[in-house]
Amino acid sequence: MISVIGIGSSPENMSIRARKAIKDSEVIITYKNYIKNIEDLIDGKEVILKGMGDEIKRAELAIQKSKEGKKVALISSGDPGVFGMGNVLFQVIGKYSGVDVEVIPGVTAATYAASLLGAPLHDFAVVSLSDILTPLSEIKRKVRAAAEGDFIITIYNPLSKTRTQPFEEAYKILLETKDPETPVGVIRSTDNGAVVTVTNLEDIKNHEINMSTTLVIGNSMTYVQEGYMITPRGYRVSYPQHELAEEFYTRYLGGEGQSGPNKSCEYYPCHSHPQNCTFCYCPFYPCGDGSTGGKWIKDKGVWSCQECEWIHQDKTVECIQATLPELLTEVDDLKNKKKELLKLRRECIYQTR
Amino acid sequence: MISVIGIGSSPENMSIRARKAIKDSEVIITYKNYIKNIEDLIDGKEVILKGMGDEIKRAELAIQKSKEGKKVALISSGDPGVFGMGNVLFQVIGKYSGVDVEVIPGVTAATYAASLLGAPLHDFAVVSLSDILTPLSEIKRKVRAAAEGDFIITIYNPLSKTRTQPFEEAYKILLETKDPETPVGVIRSTDNGAVVTVTNLEDIKNHEINMSTTLVIGNSMTYVQEGYMITPRGYRVSYPQHELAEEFYTRYLGGEGQSGPNKSCEYYPCHSHPQNCTFCYCPFYPCGDGSTGGKWIKDKGVWSCQECEWIHQDKTVECIQATLPELLTEVDDLKNKKKELLKLRRECIYQTR
Repeated sequence: MISVIGIGSSPENMSIRARKAIKDSEVIITYKNYIKNIEDLIDGKEVILKGMGDEIKRAELAIQKSKEGKKVALISSGDPGVFGMGNVLFQVIGKYSGVDVEVIPGVTAATYAASLLGAPLHDFAVVSLSDILTPLSEIKRKVRAAAEGDFIITIYNPLSKTRTQPFEEAYKILLETKDPETPVGVIRSTDNGAVVTVTNLEDIKNHEINMSTTLVIGNSMTYVQEGYMITPRGYRVSYPQHELAEEFYTRYLGGEGQSGPNKSCEYYPCHSHPQNCTFCYCPFYPCGDGSTGGKWIKDKGVWSCQECEWIHQDKTVECIQATLPELLTEVDDLKNKKKELLKLRRECIYQTR
Repeated sequence: MISVIGIGSSPENMSIRARKAIKDSEVIITYKNYIKNIEDLIDGKEVILKGMGDEIKRAELAIQKSKEGKKVALISSGDPGVFGMGNVLFQVIGKYSGVDVEVIPGVTAATYAASLLGAPLHDFAVVSLSDILTPLSEIKRKVRAAAEGDFIITIYNPLSKTRTQPFEEAYKILLETKDPETPVGVIRSTDNGAVVTVTNLEDIKNHEINMSTTLVIGNSMTYVQEGYMITPRGYRVSYPQHELAEEFYTRYLGGEGQSGPNKSCEYYPCHSHPQNCTFCYCPFYPCGDGSTGGKWIKDKGVWSCQECEWIHQDKTVECIQATLPELLTEVDDLKNKKKELLKLRRECIYQTR
């Protein structure tokens, strides 16, 4: 029996099942750098250490030892199915009959990195930039598709000393398709633990990136708050309706709305000139997420839009107006259809990015 | 302190760190159905069970208990950062000052499902089909981008009794963009463990899919072998060069190759008529992965192409010929440039799918 074991992205994130399978094994086959993470489990076992690039040999050896009747632990960092030994073993195993295999999943770098950054993931894509086995054309196609689909992108194996072109190409595609201020998390594994940096796309090259780095590239909704990288799922927060908003939307729905800049308003520009005042009161207030610049006034329970100018941009107003009449037919819809309104907000953030 | 804890996709896949954090907590806040997975850890603690849809309340409660000085365990199944409580908590936490948070990652459904299927992942995309908070337009855009980018796609929350449209729409997009025979893994969680099915895109609707199902949709390289779903990474397997191949490529490089069907050959059609015989011997032999139909003859160490007709299709030949002259200038390049040749094969599989 071969257990292909993911030991997770850090020793304390190893699963109970992974530890047990290593303890129960007779032969341990591993890339030599992983041994330090399982040292307390290897006593009395045959331990075979291999170098990088020896993946096929490791798989063949596991099969050979298993055929000798041994319980084999074939070790992968992170999850064995994500650019790990699982795929290697299954590619080779078809050569032989009668080899039993189990795959023990582990915490992969994408979710480990995310846990150190806060909550940056929503729908996400995992892409390795290693072009040792994958053509550069495929890597570029995937990075572009993920960026254009507005996925959060977690990048594995971004760069090594000799392998720099895929990163250069991917970076170019990201700058072409995303806002240069898109938040980016940089998680670099070192012998003393992970070094965590939150930066943005434009600034990323000022940070050390190597083979042991995972990058988490945000999407159009991702924002940074107090050092955390957050992609909101768009939950509705409960909040009282402001009576001035009710007055405003009563007039708006009665056809007495204002279109474009309202220069006769005593507060104009309440943000900065030029601003579109069609939605003087935001129909999404409070959205409760910082992706357009709003934030909570700490410990007061008040949502402040002071730093959100998104609702006052012409293209935002145009996107909202294309759908709002279907959703908002009476003032109470601001509350009753809040979920649908927040979905419209998401769509318009994407459309106006 | 709030620990947002991913308990993994099955109890034995919980991490050591997750167990310890639950043991060390004073208050446990969890969706009620998860409690059975942590029952041995809850003695003497305040346990607060909440229903589905109460996510914001769970986060607010965690903050409140933490502000009272309690150690709080906020429980998520799988990984808390993948459609879990992490994003909810970080959306709410901006309201308050002085709340410490740690996120403890777990094995997410994508990698858990993959471990039960074999090794189906390479670059992959994670997409939730829940349209409760996400507009359908966004879901469709992401499914299409992931399919067109040839990602393996892992689908969370595919379907509920009342929420069927996103699945219908996603399925339509997948059928438009992918081969109907693309392998699909269906992992359905039940109280008695996971039910694992390997099927294909066309057949998927004949299987039970519900809220507790994860789907793994293959890409153009994915194949099924002895019930396992495998996406090869493209490792080179060592193999002796056949002397007839050497003879063939000596003639080919000398400009004496055959173009199109070779009807004068005594073996024509060695597969089925019509077949393009330009690459009578495959320049990628042995590719060592079953994505185009080849397979190992068990325990003989022989790679058989009997069921691979891909190399004899006109569009395959055209794709290969566009690049092969750059790679293959002498017969030894078949061995010496094998990695580059296998990358060309990958690219042409994508181009001809």
